[in-house]
Amino acid sequence: MVTRRSLFAAGAALIGGAVVQRTALAALPEPMLRDDPKTLAPSAPATGRPYNPVVTLNGWSAPWRMNGNVKEFHLVAEPVVREFAPGMKANLWGYNGSSPGPTIEAVEGDRVRIFVTNRLPEHTTIHWHGMLLPNGMDGVGGLTQPHIPVGKTFVYEFDLKKSGTFMYHPHSDEMVQMAMGMMGFFVVHPRDSSRYRVDRDFVFLLNSFDIEPGAATPKVAEMTNFNMWAWNSRVFPGIDPLPVRRGDRVRVRVGNLTMTNHPIHLHGYDFEVTGTDGGWVPPSARWPEVSIDIPVGAMRAFEVVASEPGDWAIHCHKSHHTMNAMGHDVPTMIGVDHRKVARKITSLVPDYMVMGERGMADMQDMEMPIPDNTLPMMTGTGPFGPIEMGGMFSVMKVREGLPRGDYRDPGWFKHPPGTVAYEWNGPI
Amino acid sequence: MVTRRSLFAAGAALIGGAVVQRTALAALPEPMLRDDPKTLAPSAPATGRPYNPVVTLNGWSAPWRMNGNVKEFHLVAEPVVREFAPGMKANLWGYNGSSPGPTIEAVEGDRVRIFVTNRLPEHTTIHWHGMLLPNGMDGVGGLTQPHIPVGKTFVYEFDLKKSGTFMYHPHSDEMVQMAMGMMGFFVVHPRDSSRYRVDRDFVFLLNSFDIEPGAATPKVAEMTNFNMWAWNSRVFPGIDPLPVRRGDRVRVRVGNLTMTNHPIHLHGYDFEVTGTDGGWVPPSARWPEVSIDIPVGAMRAFEVVASEPGDWAIHCHKSHHTMNAMGHDVPTMIGVDHRKVARKITSLVPDYMVMGERGMADMQDMEMPIPDNTLPMMTGTGPFGPIEMGGMFSVMKVREGLPRGDYRDPGWFKHPPGTVAYEWNGPI
Amino acid sequence: MVTRRSLFAAGAALIGGAVVQRTALAALPEPMLRDDPKTLAPSAPATGRPYNPVVTLNGWSAPWRMNGNVKEFHLVAEPVVREFAPGMKANLWGYNGSSPGPTIEAVEGDRVRIFVTNRLPEHTTIHWHGMLLPNGMDGVGGLTQPHIPVGKTFVYEFDLKKSGTFMYHPHSDEMVQMAMGMMGFFVVHPRDSSRYRVDRDFVFLLNSFDIEPGAATPKVAEMTNFNMWAWNSRVFPGIDPLPVRRGDRVRVRVGNLTMTNHPIHLHGYDFEVTGTDGGWVPPSARWPEVSIDIPVGAMRAFEVVASEPGDWAIHCHKSHHTMNAMGHDVPTMIGVDHRKVARKITSLVPDYMVMGERGMADMQDMEMPIPDNTLPMMTGTGPFGPIEMGGMFSVMKVREGLPRGDYRDPGWFKHPPGTVAYEWNGPI
Repeated sequence: MVTRRSLFAAGAALIGGAVVQRTALAALPEPMLRDDPKTLAPSAPATGRPYNPVVTLNGWSAPWRMNGNVKEFHLVAEPVVREFAPGMKANLWGYNGSSPGPTIEAVEGDRVRIFVTNRLPEHTTIHWHGMLLPNGMDGVGGLTQPHIPVGKTFVYEFDLKKSGTFMYHPHSDEMVQMAMGMMGFFVVHPRDSSRYRVDRDFVFLLNSFDIEPGAATPKVAEMTNFNMWAWNSRVFPGIDPLPVRRGDRVRVRVGNLTMTNHPIHLHGYDFEVTGTDGGWVPPSARWPEVSIDIPVGAMRAFEVVASEPGDWAIHCHKSHHTMNAMGHDVPTMIGVDHRKVARKITSLVPDYMVMGERGMADMQDMEMPIPDNTLPMMTGTGPFGPIEMGGMFSVMKVREGLPRGDYRDPGWFKHPPGTVAYEWNGPI
Repeated sequence: MVTRRSLFAAGAALIGGAVVQRTALAALPEPMLRDDPKTLAPSAPATGRPYNPVVTLNGWSAPWRMNGNVKEFHLVAEPVVREFAPGMKANLWGYNGSSPGPTIEAVEGDRVRIFVTNRLPEHTTIHWHGMLLPNGMDGVGGLTQPHIPVGKTFVYEFDLKKSGTFMYHPHSDEMVQMAMGMMGFFVVHPRDSSRYRVDRDFVFLLNSFDIEPGAATPKVAEMTNFNMWAWNSRVFPGIDPLPVRRGDRVRVRVGNLTMTNHPIHLHGYDFEVTGTDGGWVPPSARWPEVSIDIPVGAMRAFEVVASEPGDWAIHCHKSHHTMNAMGHDVPTMIGVDHRKVARKITSLVPDYMVMGERGMADMQDMEMPIPDNTLPMMTGTGPFGPIEMGGMFSVMKVREGLPRGDYRDPGWFKHPPGTVAYEWNGPI
Repeated sequence: MVTRRSLFAAGAALIGGAVVQRTALAALPEPMLRDDPKTLAPSAPATGRPYNPVVTLNGWSAPWRMNGNVKEFHLVAEPVVREFAPGMKANLWGYNGSSPGPTIEAVEGDRVRIFVTNRLPEHTTIHWHGMLLPNGMDGVGGLTQPHIPVGKTFVYEFDLKKSGTFMYHPHSDEMVQMAMGMMGFFVVHPRDSSRYRVDRDFVFLLNSFDIEPGAATPKVAEMTNFNMWAWNSRVFPGIDPLPVRRGDRVRVRVGNLTMTNHPIHLHGYDFEVTGTDGGWVPPSARWPEVSIDIPVGAMRAFEVVASEPGDWAIHCHKSHHTMNAMGHDVPTMIGVDHRKVARKITSLVPDYMVMGERGMADMQDMEMPIPDNTLPMMTGTGPFGPIEMGGMFSVMKVREGLPRGDYRDPGWFKHPPGTVAYEWNGPI
């Protein structure tokens, strides 16, 4: 017998208080909602084929119900409010309360039925990026199906022919709807759960927004000059760390739905790309890398054995993409005697502070007034002081004693004696 | 005996009424001209070694004459008028009446002699991108040869040492001349025509232009903010589809001569890069992909077996690159009560219409007046309504009954029963 | 006995008159300084394990002293003046008198101790990009160490676990400090010096600056619209050529610390990527290329056998990146009757010259006045006239008679009879 309790056994208990139930959709699988930006620790599936679940950074996975042999999901496209980091919220569009939408997880060989309800102010569709499926399920509005009108529900149904890492996003007013944050991951686990097995499996999407400091709604027609470079619609210091047990085999799957390549750089390790949204990369074709350049509309999965403990930075290597909004229109003051300039500028821009005449690191210490609902350009504090980062930055925290399956932030690393850098105290 | 008839047997008949003969160039091979932006169906070569010809999307291949053992081509660099899509024409520079110039096709082992006549207002050269040749044939003005003065003809001659996919473009006032559209493909077929054989072989170049709405000449000093993202100097809905017979092995060769990477995404299939402008990629080194990121100054050939019928979108995955000119400077109106704003804007910009307060899909339905000689930002109509695309977008049309060698547009796909997505009519 | 003479045997003699000694740092290894932008020819190491040294284009390698089994280097972070090309100098930040800093060369298995003295106006650190090391040596300010205060020295010490091509740069006010030019190469040679051996081994870093014509200090908050696209903080015609003996096996190692991908295109050859900053690429995984797209925060080493003599252009294939500052804000004049326009513009902008109505090649010949301390957009003169390039452009000069180990510019190539392109003198 199918009851609500059993339907959502995999997710409901964990999602807990953050879940809102939509009572008006009784005949369809109930769409679970979650607007909490904390990373939800993964749990093994209660129904269907077994798999090793992924961890969606600052996100969650969608529950489903079994209807005969079919896994039924329900996505609701709707406006959402997303906290980018403490101190800044944005008006986005997403799915089931969040942007990105929940990760869909299923297993090779599954048949899925995905109900998509449109609660946006305009029509939409969903394209299942990378998926092999019948043409009518491809989700291109006008080409393979009618756009889904406001208030209506459309049903996608197809077999999952192969394992891999796919994405979902609209193909209907696409530029606008993606610029507003509509996207999600679709992970198809291998039928044999011991294949491609890793100990920790993180997924996140790269997305970018152009939100004027003080505003809350993205400008949807921007092409290059974005000022919020995000992972799963979060920016540092709002991005959760990647806690890892020493010796774990770790996979990181990163999809890019921005407008430019992002080279994701992990400190302290070299590694190989083991999968794309096209499939698994054969070992003979793999390259060693320390920065994985992820093209737009593509996914790269890379793997590393976490042999070396510590706090290892992981970030986009375009240095502007590790800055928040205030870092993108600052004049150069290096070497400038600021006194005259400041007088002039202050007369034009009230509350202007001269900064950066000796570089910009000063700014972290200044109590510079910034508009409401924005973020300082460089921020974050580590065990040794200000980290001076923003945007696409996080830390892989490799710990000796971390329990298997624990995804809580283990705090900062204590350097064992003999490995800590030291300051020279002799004569200089 | 060499006559005009036999010289151009491969091309003249097909090119038909679009061909203009330049009578003043009697001693050189007659330069054939074509300004029709329709795709010319390929034909087998009438002289020289046999090969399987490519299909240049919205383009054509240059005819040649045999002079002893040498294949003689004649390119004329000159101003051209190119229709980007019905409703917009641009003043470009190209070769033999078109931008891009005609594809040069020859065979590994051939010796080619290419006469280049300069009918531009300034000097030029041609660099044979990717080709292994003597230094003096490399086409770098000032470095390996004098620039070709206005009105003069320069002769390039070299042996084709290997098969592959190369490009040609000026290396003389290069930024300007490429921004004006001067470029073309140079395909060298393998000596053994059964090697690397495919059933359909499409080629196109990515190029970008910055043409103000209402104007017709590109701005040649733009670096990033282009507004016309084109394939072979055409934009959707002006780009022809790729008609393919079910079961065909299809190759798509894409060269990039813009200023940024373009991830070319084909729906419904995964595939591998099998060749670059450096050569054929060995099978051990190939990756599975669904979006091929094509660097600037590079070519990627990928192959797919067309197993699944339907209308499969193929496009650049940077969503701004599937928009036409009007999509790049539009303010965000989402969530804005437009009435006051509209009054203010209308007083500044006559003919302004409020759009986008609920997204931008509305714009397709509005009869919004746009300047002469430009294109709506989202356009095209499929079997299920507006496709809402522009720029770098087309459709691979995989059909059961398409005759071998037929490259006519087969129209929209009729979904067989059971594969069409359906709308949920139950209670929501 | 350790004396200054023996300490710096590898470098001091060669660096010669350009070296300045900092007498106040007696207890630490003396930091050698060099502000000469000419390429320093490499020399074999006088102490420590043997290796085949690299050639840093327009740069040099840092000397060291052996202290027991440890190689001791000393880097001084400080403001420097760098000549981009004759006619333009920039106020940058660098190391030991130059930007980029000197290349650090050592051998797999070495233990290195690197003293970093901060003579900048703000704090700094050094991150050893790509290196496998203990977390405390990773150089991320705030995260793995305190920032190095102004006037202080910090000591890094670690074992070189593997050979490869790494980079060093600050991880402290990173956007600003890298935009000011702080970066360098760190080459770890294989323990067995016959492994991966080549005859010529060139290294350079891609960097970009935004310096207004007439100014000398980069704008540090620019994200995309840079106007100086540099190799090792030099632009054409300031970049030295790559002199190569015919038949040499040549490696070129290129690191990218700009904000965008750069496809490095070498004319006349095809080649493979043999290494990244993650390690050596196994042969099974290599692709043939003629343009190597180098992601940001990544390094690509490629190899070629110099079989064909001549002057072979090597450059970034984004055509704006082979222009200098004046090429990025020029209006299009093609097809414009300039007489009226010129009168209007001249009244607004004194010294304005109408250019480009027939393309921009005219500009090279015009005696157009440009601001002090900037460079013409297209420049350079070869054996056949103006080369019309700037920015990221140089020439690999392959010569029959070049002595082994000679890195002097051999001048322009003389085309042997029969390989030079010729002009058509018949009727046209």
